[in-house]
Amino acid sequence: MRPSLRLLALLCSLPLAALTLPAAEPLPGVPAVTNAPGAAYPRLLPDNRVVFRVKAPEAQRVQFRIYQTFDAVKDAEGFWTVTTEPQVPGFHYYWLVIDGVAVNDPASETFYGTGKQTSGLEIPEPGNDGAYYQPQDVPHGEVRERWYHSKVTQAPRRFFVYTPPGYDQNRDMRYPVLYLQHGGGEDERAWPIQGRVAQIMDNLIAAGQAKPMLIVMERGYALKPGDAEVPFNPGANANLTPAEMQARSIARSATFEQVMLQDVIPLVDATYRTLPDRDHRAIAGFSMGGGQAFMIGLRNPGLFASIGGLSGTGGTIADPATYYGGIFADVAAFNARTKLLFLGHGGAEPERMMTGFHSFHARLTELGITHAYYVSEGTGHVWLTERRNLREFSTRLFR
Amino acid sequence: MRPSLRLLALLCSLPLAALTLPAAEPLPGVPAVTNAPGAAYPRLLPDNRVVFRVKAPEAQRVQFRIYQTFDAVKDAEGFWTVTTEPQVPGFHYYWLVIDGVAVNDPASETFYGTGKQTSGLEIPEPGNDGAYYQPQDVPHGEVRERWYHSKVTQAPRRFFVYTPPGYDQNRDMRYPVLYLQHGGGEDERAWPIQGRVAQIMDNLIAAGQAKPMLIVMERGYALKPGDAEVPFNPGANANLTPAEMQARSIARSATFEQVMLQDVIPLVDATYRTLPDRDHRAIAGFSMGGGQAFMIGLRNPGLFASIGGLSGTGGTIADPATYYGGIFADVAAFNARTKLLFLGHGGAEPERMMTGFHSFHARLTELGITHAYYVSEGTGHVWLTERRNLREFSTRLFR
Repeated sequence: MRPSLRLLALLCSLPLAALTLPAAEPLPGVPAVTNAPGAAYPRLLPDNRVVFRVKAPEAQRVQFRIYQTFDAVKDAEGFWTVTTEPQVPGFHYYWLVIDGVAVNDPASETFYGTGKQTSGLEIPEPGNDGAYYQPQDVPHGEVRERWYHSKVTQAPRRFFVYTPPGYDQNRDMRYPVLYLQHGGGEDERAWPIQGRVAQIMDNLIAAGQAKPMLIVMERGYALKPGDAEVPFNPGANANLTPAEMQARSIARSATFEQVMLQDVIPLVDATYRTLPDRDHRAIAGFSMGGGQAFMIGLRNPGLFASIGGLSGTGGTIADPATYYGGIFADVAAFNARTKLLFLGHGGAEPERMMTGFHSFHARLTELGITHAYYVSEGTGHVWLTERRNLREFSTRLFR
Repeated sequence: MRPSLRLLALLCSLPLAALTLPAAEPLPGVPAVTNAPGAAYPRLLPDNRVVFRVKAPEAQRVQFRIYQTFDAVKDAEGFWTVTTEPQVPGFHYYWLVIDGVAVNDPASETFYGTGKQTSGLEIPEPGNDGAYYQPQDVPHGEVRERWYHSKVTQAPRRFFVYTPPGYDQNRDMRYPVLYLQHGGGEDERAWPIQGRVAQIMDNLIAAGQAKPMLIVMERGYALKPGDAEVPFNPGANANLTPAEMQARSIARSATFEQVMLQDVIPLVDATYRTLPDRDHRAIAGFSMGGGQAFMIGLRNPGLFASIGGLSGTGGTIADPATYYGGIFADVAAFNARTKLLFLGHGGAEPERMMTGFHSFHARLTELGITHAYYVSEGTGHVWLTERRNLREFSTRLFR
């Protein structure tokens, strides 16, 4: 049947984006890949400035916030537009402020961070630098969502687990396991989404640069019935002694540690084809999750032979005789039984954090504790740093 | 070590929510489970009225929109608050309008729907009515995210696949497959998240009410290089003849159909332990996805023996001799080779949709086409209807 002319006109309708924009000259730059489908803004200019736009004819004041605040200017049609300074490549949280209220940009996909769903902006790296976290035509693993009933919190919880390419086919192969935690204000979705775990691991494994491994991503918060929440507030630590700070870290994550030890690790070892020994078990995390990795890894050396601090440290090592139960009291023994201790961070993180990374690295060095150290040049406390940290950590892991 | 008093004060800090609220009398109702962590609003009252609140001291006008618009009232501290009419239980999209701009409620989790991330509100059903879509302490399957390179679109795509409890352990068991599509403005994340696929299937399988099956959830949009988008706009169909409407449906989803036939089904049958024959393969979908299920299912009867329209139909069956290639021309043959044709919808969907469901159901009946028919009393074009539809469809499927 030949379609009628009327139908042809319908079939040939322009894409939605074209219908909502002035037809005239082409817009500068390109829409970000993190935009909502069909959204023409935010747009990325070739020098990594970003053009934000929102229609708000009745608003008195519109700002976009991406690390700093940019005041938008209103045009006759009620569109508020602003062009930022050049931004560093990678993934950034941002938001919109309409008449003083911080809300998400309706034109963007959202990502769980800053304690809630938040707009995000992905700025490509130059050339092929970001190819390792893009989906490529290589064998793909899976990210699996698994619910379970926690004996510790007496409530349903879930984790995500990356299984490498061939996991289902290689039916007798067993795999090492990395437990990988998100940062403060984020949750178990952060590594699969913002962190691009599956893309990074698929690509590294295809290139022979990382060993096939399972990566378990849990929610770094846990309260038992009756537990009072200990807020995550690094600023409140400023006046604490190292011992007080460590006690506070332990208190804040004690229930999460129990979830890991009593629920997650037994469930993972019972459910997946793991190599269930310390040499083939690692724990790492971003920022707050790095602190948790050192806390749980150093307090349970019989479980973990490898620890990764990804823009996160084990805090101040004042007296090795008391630090996490004296784990560093015998450095030779610690070095002998530890397969990998890794610290990585961005070269442009906030000053307070840089001080923490540098002093932790210096103190490990001073004590003679063998560790790998990596700096991601030019990047801040952001997910591009963590994608690189995961690449650097995972390619050294389980060797 | 005994913690110092200063540390104790820190450890005993109140939960964040308590710090941001007036301490006085307890708030009425309870926070919704769909709230951002710690957010005290939206609150659900016992009669299912909802109290929305946002702080916006500088705004001139604040509204909350959940099917209808509710004007909020500002207090002296700059909080805008409104209490809605009683809402129907289940999951609802909603949003906030600040000075005329529709944005998400910063206090809510977001869900991909309405063509972008949108605030969502889950209102519990009375008693145990909603237990079948809650996580229970039963054996759990997984929802797996799988990326692949599409030969059709020449770009990376992904789907989600639910694998039932025991899939990894029962290493020689093979499973039937349901291909299950989302509605217009939603994407492949809708069934796993809003639709609670894993919870529903885990519970039904544990109760012996559904057969263990795989459920593949793809993205119902696909463009080949050079394809022009055919907008999904049911309103634009009003003046089309049935033949034009069918041609338009086919044009809009033709590339998606190719993705299903050339990419997804071969990949699923090659990757998972499926029963790769028509008797063990079904296709269903919600709304737009229901239309796609009838289109793809009826055009490819050699592939699918079962079809489900979940608040979605196969359109107007004017002349059975030409409808989808004459698939209903020989009703006896169709009935003989079809294992399950299912139509389910809410009892309170919008009038235009109700007309469509009733006339499709009546026409199938008139033509003598065997089909199961289910009405979810009191629910609209919403995810509670679809959770029930999935329950009703899946418990009849692969029998």
